[in-house]
Amino acid sequence: MKLNCDLGESYGSWTMGMDSAVMPFIDMANIACGFHAGDADVMQQTLALAKHHQVQIGAHPSYPDRQGFGRRSMNCSTEELVNLLHYQIAALDGMAQIHGLQLSYVKPHGALYNDMMRHPAILETVFTAIASYHKPLALMMLATAKQHQHKQQAQAESIDVLFEAFADRRYTDEGLLMPRSKSGAVLNKQDVLEQVKLLVSEGVVITESGQRLSLIADTLCVHGDNEAAIAQVQQIQQVLKAS
Amino acid sequence: MKLNCDLGESYGSWTMGMDSAVMPFIDMANIACGFHAGDADVMQQTLALAKHHQVQIGAHPSYPDRQGFGRRSMNCSTEELVNLLHYQIAALDGMAQIHGLQLSYVKPHGALYNDMMRHPAILETVFTAIASYHKPLALMMLATAKQHQHKQQAQAESIDVLFEAFADRRYTDEGLLMPRSKSGAVLNKQDVLEQVKLLVSEGVVITESGQRLSLIADTLCVHGDNEAAIAQVQQIQQVLKAS
Amino acid sequence: MKLNCDLGESYGSWTMGMDSAVMPFIDMANIACGFHAGDADVMQQTLALAKHHQVQIGAHPSYPDRQGFGRRSMNCSTEELVNLLHYQIAALDGMAQIHGLQLSYVKPHGALYNDMMRHPAILETVFTAIASYHKPLALMMLATAKQHQHKQQAQAESIDVLFEAFADRRYTDEGLLMPRSKSGAVLNKQDVLEQVKLLVSEGVVITESGQRLSLIADTLCVHGDNEAAIAQVQQIQQVLKAS
Amino acid sequence: MKLNCDLGESYGSWTMGMDSAVMPFIDMANIACGFHAGDADVMQQTLALAKHHQVQIGAHPSYPDRQGFGRRSMNCSTEELVNLLHYQIAALDGMAQIHGLQLSYVKPHGALYNDMMRHPAILETVFTAIASYHKPLALMMLATAKQHQHKQQAQAESIDVLFEAFADRRYTDEGLLMPRSKSGAVLNKQDVLEQVKLLVSEGVVITESGQRLSLIADTLCVHGDNEAAIAQVQQIQQVLKAS
Repeated sequence: MKLNCDLGESYGSWTMGMDSAVMPFIDMANIACGFHAGDADVMQQTLALAKHHQVQIGAHPSYPDRQGFGRRSMNCSTEELVNLLHYQIAALDGMAQIHGLQLSYVKPHGALYNDMMRHPAILETVFTAIASYHKPLALMMLATAKQHQHKQQAQAESIDVLFEAFADRRYTDEGLLMPRSKSGAVLNKQDVLEQVKLLVSEGVVITESGQRLSLIADTLCVHGDNEAAIAQVQQIQQVLKAS
Repeated sequence: MKLNCDLGESYGSWTMGMDSAVMPFIDMANIACGFHAGDADVMQQTLALAKHHQVQIGAHPSYPDRQGFGRRSMNCSTEELVNLLHYQIAALDGMAQIHGLQLSYVKPHGALYNDMMRHPAILETVFTAIASYHKPLALMMLATAKQHQHKQQAQAESIDVLFEAFADRRYTDEGLLMPRSKSGAVLNKQDVLEQVKLLVSEGVVITESGQRLSLIADTLCVHGDNEAAIAQVQQIQQVLKAS
Repeated sequence: MKLNCDLGESYGSWTMGMDSAVMPFIDMANIACGFHAGDADVMQQTLALAKHHQVQIGAHPSYPDRQGFGRRSMNCSTEELVNLLHYQIAALDGMAQIHGLQLSYVKPHGALYNDMMRHPAILETVFTAIASYHKPLALMMLATAKQHQHKQQAQAESIDVLFEAFADRRYTDEGLLMPRSKSGAVLNKQDVLEQVKLLVSEGVVITESGQRLSLIADTLCVHGDNEAAIAQVQQIQQVLKAS
Repeated sequence: MKLNCDLGESYGSWTMGMDSAVMPFIDMANIACGFHAGDADVMQQTLALAKHHQVQIGAHPSYPDRQGFGRRSMNCSTEELVNLLHYQIAALDGMAQIHGLQLSYVKPHGALYNDMMRHPAILETVFTAIASYHKPLALMMLATAKQHQHKQQAQAESIDVLFEAFADRRYTDEGLLMPRSKSGAVLNKQDVLEQVKLLVSEGVVITESGQRLSLIADTLCVHGDNEAAIAQVQQIQQVLKAS
């Protein structure tokens, strides 16, 4: 199971995350494309770092809302959403090729990711955007109770799906992530490792109400926000190696 | 001699230029990339229009200054300038490929264009950005008294140059454009046609002080701002066909 | 009944509306504050124009979405919404005082206006923002079937309300505006004048389904987008004078 | 001698500086107004913090360049510069009044500050902007060898000047700050305290070439970027108390 991490989320003079510290431990870098975070300079540096550590790269596009960090839903039309996804993917794609790197997937960010998981019409729009891009790109999305249905929908559009699970987030019974605002939504250190172990060994997470939920995850989302997060990534890597 | 025109300079709900009216008469569309004008929606529409009329497409990148329409010089570092050119070119390049179109050249916009023509270090940075892009792109720049030197510099970086002349602007004796703010900088209708004829027949423009200046132009910059401008483009096209 | 109009919606090099043509015919100018349209230059010019024609001025704040012209709902928190309203109101307020003008009201723009009319929590947040501003400002909002309730709510926060009706828009039976996307939402020239007459003479509009709906309007929203719109404003002005 | 500090330079989800840690030790907070840093939320929080610690507040306006943090010169016209200063000052002014605070001065930020100190026309434009604001505001500017001349110019426009010196920056012989990019431009801890002592006791700084330069400073610019910076502010405060 590969580790993926949101990266390149600094902007101008503002630093976010410890990208160079976490990059050695991950397999896939979800790189911000300038709409919620990142800019041409940050993207260039993040691509160089990914190249150095031979990390696979994906586009991490967002609603156009830098001040809100892409965390506020915006009521975009289908055409607007397709176009803004194309713009962001294309910008990163071309900059990656300058480094000799190939973009391989797309993981929508923040509110767009959540909206895509909750609203079938938005998921369909994301599929449309990816299917109409001029090269094949996989879609990274949340592994939920509906993942088989999602896979079929994607296949109908000839899109590969990478299902991700979250190491550090509690799941609802429907297999969605509990909102961060709710108590218990973010797991403590020990519970993170337990969740990873169970996911790897049995393909299962324990939900909010204590139920076992089957999830087939291709990749695990980890974080590089600070030293504690990076220590945890290393621990998760150990768990994966040991499994 | 091909006709090129700056297009895709609408933004959001604001319209600028009569793109669909001028597109049938031009050969090359310089498409804004979202930094001074244009956005993902406008770019998509402009590309579709260019495709329909089989017009060659180029990126028209700018300093990051939408409110100032890219007309204010900004003191960017070399790295910043290279990165922001790459970002804009890549965004348009990828969106063009979605339409099955290939980007073939870059024409910097506004203050960046002027700065590039006046400051060798900035021209050098633009060369660097284009030379390091992952596919060959020509640079469209002003044909001036220094055009032979510019061509040699570009060739040293394996970059093709497309020299453009302006149909409607008076030239200084150095072969630069008189600033729009100066009286006489913009030619009247009749003088435009005279300038085009002389340029096509003899490769010469008459400068501010009445001197003959030799200019070899690959392309002529025209405008599609309003009905009068479009009528003029048609007249210029007639002059070119008749020559 | 006063005429109000959204103005100052140009941005940078992009012009929107014929502000100088419509200003002589209106009583109240709703001035964009830079978040969906307008910028420091446009605001300055619009204030100067309002001063010249002795037109009352109001702030026309928006969600922070220039590319979407403030027409896309954004899921802002209460604090974010209060702060972004304060920022926009304050910017216009201070610039108005430079001209010796006093801001007298606030009319939210676009999606924020619609959201305020549909979601009580957002209306409450708008009340909070206005009530906490350091000087008294009225709120301009849509006169609907609930206008008495809205008035009471506003009074509870010591806020004056200016109810507006739309001359050119069809009303739903609930007294909201039919979405522009629906057929019949925008009235033709003649129907506009009929709607105005009925509103002035009887305080009534005829809704989508043909019902009579009582509306008490302090002001009528008109438009200055183009020559036809301005001609209509003049006709409406005649109707009002004759009534 | 009062201590002033640039504050409120976080943006959206990005944090910059340790505002709450440094606020207790300073006398004057230069608050970003949203153009290079800060946003409506950050401004609100910074004003609340300043109020709590009874710190005097000033506007810290910038060129409109968030990605470049206002550190890139932009070639704005006089009108543009006046308007963008008014907009930023007004936004902060109004938000301050919501807290019952009064804005008392303006300190331009970054490239605008440097341009104002180097180009008399830009300084004149800044004077114009402040003089035309609807309430009296002082201008905080660098104490240089020309400070008497600057004071006279300001007085001619009825503007008070607050001259600031930098605790941690080496001065050129002309009394400007050495560019940060140059070696030796930023003083080490011990040299900072020496510079403060000399400035307080004798009104003198030692320049790049070792010369003594007389500077009359009303205020000293300090920083709250990190723990070391804050420790230094406390040391400087001790030096000032002891003097």
